[in-house]
Amino acid sequence: MNQPHTSSITFADSHIGMPHGAGGQATRRLVEGLFIPAFRNAVLAERSDAAVFAHGSDRLAMTTDSYVVKPLAFPGGSIGDLAINGTVNDLAVSGADPLVVSASFILEAGLDVTILRREVEAMARAAAAAGVTIATGDTKVVEHGKADGLYINTTGLGRVDPRLQLGPSRVVPGDQVLVSGPIGDHGITILLARGELDLESDVRSDTRSILLLTRALRDALGSELKWMRDATRGGVATVLNELADDAGVSVFVSEERIPVRDVVRGACELLGIDPLHVANEGQFVAVVSRESADRAISALRAVPGGEGAVVLGEVRDGPVGAVFGRSDFGGTRVIDMLVGDPLPRIC
Amino acid sequence: MNQPHTSSITFADSHIGMPHGAGGQATRRLVEGLFIPAFRNAVLAERSDAAVFAHGSDRLAMTTDSYVVKPLAFPGGSIGDLAINGTVNDLAVSGADPLVVSASFILEAGLDVTILRREVEAMARAAAAAGVTIATGDTKVVEHGKADGLYINTTGLGRVDPRLQLGPSRVVPGDQVLVSGPIGDHGITILLARGELDLESDVRSDTRSILLLTRALRDALGSELKWMRDATRGGVATVLNELADDAGVSVFVSEERIPVRDVVRGACELLGIDPLHVANEGQFVAVVSRESADRAISALRAVPGGEGAVVLGEVRDGPVGAVFGRSDFGGTRVIDMLVGDPLPRIC
Repeated sequence: MNQPHTSSITFADSHIGMPHGAGGQATRRLVEGLFIPAFRNAVLAERSDAAVFAHGSDRLAMTTDSYVVKPLAFPGGSIGDLAINGTVNDLAVSGADPLVVSASFILEAGLDVTILRREVEAMARAAAAAGVTIATGDTKVVEHGKADGLYINTTGLGRVDPRLQLGPSRVVPGDQVLVSGPIGDHGITILLARGELDLESDVRSDTRSILLLTRALRDALGSELKWMRDATRGGVATVLNELADDAGVSVFVSEERIPVRDVVRGACELLGIDPLHVANEGQFVAVVSRESADRAISALRAVPGGEGAVVLGEVRDGPVGAVFGRSDFGGTRVIDMLVGDPLPRIC
Repeated sequence: MNQPHTSSITFADSHIGMPHGAGGQATRRLVEGLFIPAFRNAVLAERSDAAVFAHGSDRLAMTTDSYVVKPLAFPGGSIGDLAINGTVNDLAVSGADPLVVSASFILEAGLDVTILRREVEAMARAAAAAGVTIATGDTKVVEHGKADGLYINTTGLGRVDPRLQLGPSRVVPGDQVLVSGPIGDHGITILLARGELDLESDVRSDTRSILLLTRALRDALGSELKWMRDATRGGVATVLNELADDAGVSVFVSEERIPVRDVVRGACELLGIDPLHVANEGQFVAVVSRESADRAISALRAVPGGEGAVVLGEVRDGPVGAVFGRSDFGGTRVIDMLVGDPLPRIC
């Protein structure tokens, strides 16, 4: 285990398709087969949510995301909320506190300014809630039909908690895998908001800053906190597969412990998709030492919004790179990365 | 003079139009009337190319830009070159050396991967030339017809030269205004590449990193270097108007000294536009003390690519906020900011 991750993926696709943006296997092939070989450097090759690099006596974390969610607004949030929370959360799971965020807009000519104003105000509120400053920005306009209302890029810079050493190389068999709360709310909300499923429901996106949750874990565990990742595109299943692969371990998930709301489970059954593949915008996965798992769960549950935190499974030594679901009744199944893109433009 | 810039602009437009992205007056109204009031904070209100903020004993600079240039490739460069050079240059004119850059892609489904590969390789080459690391990235895919091939956001982080104190408050009457070389090449190249003008020409985009030029100025002048801005969207005229406004001064430009290639001047005459309004991607404007102007020009001309640097004009005390062109024959005209968008999607 703990072998350094080496990329030997070749990207041979001739054209870009929606799955290349879905965060699953196709995205991974694109990133590891095309971007990383071209931009070859040690920081990028770590393939985490944020680049972490030394600056003076600090470690800084930088992360970028472009947001193209459709529709622009949905129950529980909107593209403006996602644009701040998603980037804050990538810093949070890197063990960092945000310093500043940039905001760059691609606007479609003809966009109603009331929509732009609504989203800018949503960003301002989300930034205030997360305690982060929007420090610089950019605006481009493209012709009608060359965007879809508006796209927003945010890039965040944060300072990594000096008490932490996060990384897949810290993960060893016996470590416990936690999830911060119920999964799949965001993806199913988007799907219902598009009217693609004939289902009445009051499910809402879980978009939020997870910064206070990660801070509670950092304070409670210090260096016993080993690895964190927010479970956005590709869902918890993709995150766990990346963990298993990068750490050279296997992950066993207890099926009965997977926290899923009934409405989300029902929608997934109708669609024939696994809630573990559905995107979240306010949940993350953490790996902690076996000894600290109870402390970790207590710390998370003490934070408003962390009441649903549970131990989801544990790390084992093999088969390397695999994730399994095991039920109390004895059944075991392989949990794969997301393949294809059942839910395009989720964030 | 040197009064702090206060925004009292109201943004009352009902819909977004192409001029809002052109970098001139409409962009300014959008930024100052909508974004800044919502994201209200001291860093953003400085309205410079990059946010500068203290970190430990350092000052860091952060800048973001989304690139939507059309066509994707043109004589002298492509969107990938612009995406790195443009962001490096925003750091450079903030007096910073780049530390890391992020790269975020919005890809249109159906994009030929050979185009993506070409642009990624152009980015890698430009990053190597500027000595900057592409440290983190993101990829989103939108449906065919919801983008125009690809859009790239880059966000750069740099460390500000501790010898410098750049800012409009440093600018006083008598200071000299320099430009690093011939203007308008980029904008006219894009226009010709679109086939919108029936003109044969070998003009090429000036896209390049200006980092070595700004370093030479920093080394030669130290704190006598007072203000820098790269003259991209909106051209030199817009940059000078922002200078006059932010510094509470006027700027007088010597018409005969404006460096413009014949082919660019000819194209501008055909189009009825002023070369001072045409975008550049490898030229910048600097303000230096009167005493240091000769030293500044010598330093720039000693750097390969800086041979065309000239003193363009000087700072005077009023009328505040105005820019004038004065010819040797005695004529004087007002040089306004760019109004409208004669050249959309230039970067």
